[in-house]
Amino acid sequence: MIGNNVALVLVDFQKAFEEPSWGEFSTPKAVFKASELLHYFRDQGGLVIHIQHTRTDPVSLFYKGSLTHSFMEPVLPVEDEMIIQKDVNSSFIGTNLESVLKEHGVLEVIIAGFTTQHCVSTTVRMSGNLGFKTTLVSDATSASAIAPYDAQTIHEVTLATLRDEFADIVTTEELLLRYR
Amino acid sequence: MIGNNVALVLVDFQKAFEEPSWGEFSTPKAVFKASELLHYFRDQGGLVIHIQHTRTDPVSLFYKGSLTHSFMEPVLPVEDEMIIQKDVNSSFIGTNLESVLKEHGVLEVIIAGFTTQHCVSTTVRMSGNLGFKTTLVSDATSASAIAPYDAQTIHEVTLATLRDEFADIVTTEELLLRYR
Repeated sequence: MIGNNVALVLVDFQKAFEEPSWGEFSTPKAVFKASELLHYFRDQGGLVIHIQHTRTDPVSLFYKGSLTHSFMEPVLPVEDEMIIQKDVNSSFIGTNLESVLKEHGVLEVIIAGFTTQHCVSTTVRMSGNLGFKTTLVSDATSASAIAPYDAQTIHEVTLATLRDEFADIVTTEELLLRYR
Repeated sequence: MIGNNVALVLVDFQKAFEEPSWGEFSTPKAVFKASELLHYFRDQGGLVIHIQHTRTDPVSLFYKGSLTHSFMEPVLPVEDEMIIQKDVNSSFIGTNLESVLKEHGVLEVIIAGFTTQHCVSTTVRMSGNLGFKTTLVSDATSASAIAPYDAQTIHEVTLATLRDEFADIVTTEELLLRYR
């Protein structure tokens, strides 16, 4: 059972990240794992927040209203789910995410998304530092490569820098076992 | 010349990090590079802010008032320099750093300190996302190891995840050349 003090925060699961220009990702099946999490939270009536990276620059893949700005099919929000738009890496800066979580009495935040090293890492760090018990779901989170490092190295080293200091790091299976 | 819209933010240069329990660091001479930066800013009358990690737990190396809580000798604050205490990784959370920078008209923040992957990375990410032009000084910043990765790998991969997305990454020499 998911308590009503837990929220699932899905970061930037947008079609922009399906573009081939990104190159390889560490975790190509991340969106399907996120979909598992999402459906479990929905079934249990847990709080779900979809974070949507949103830019005003028409050439951005995240330009508001563009096809690539929209959510990936496996994690499409349903009618009553909350969508919070952001325009920087952190889901907590320039948004009402912190106040929404507090208004809902949330103590624990479960985070997954794109990319491990930029928006997810920044959101996890702030979530932990703001006092939320924070869990990052590693196989529902994906890194891109940054030369000379491949995507897997960026993913793994980023997780190492977050582990214990900011968040628990678990797989989708490990997370769901907590609640079953 | 340093403009009056630039601030130097030195993160956690405290004797705690001289303790052998940390193991190897990526950048053993970081504090001497930070001292160069500090003296240059002082000579030019630039704004300097010393961030001091401060815990209320008496067994912490960062316990307020303990020897290891105090600043390293080469970067000891002088009388009129600002000290801001924090108790989480981000220098911007639970502190007045953002408002102090804005009150001083700061547009550009130069950051160095301990550790690259935890407090420095988190502070750099928030500085960039809050809209400050942010520069991280790589050889005045030091990482510790996180098994199975050595300190150098943690340092270098962390810099790769910050570069361009959150901050310019420069050496002390490159930074000082900007102003000379």
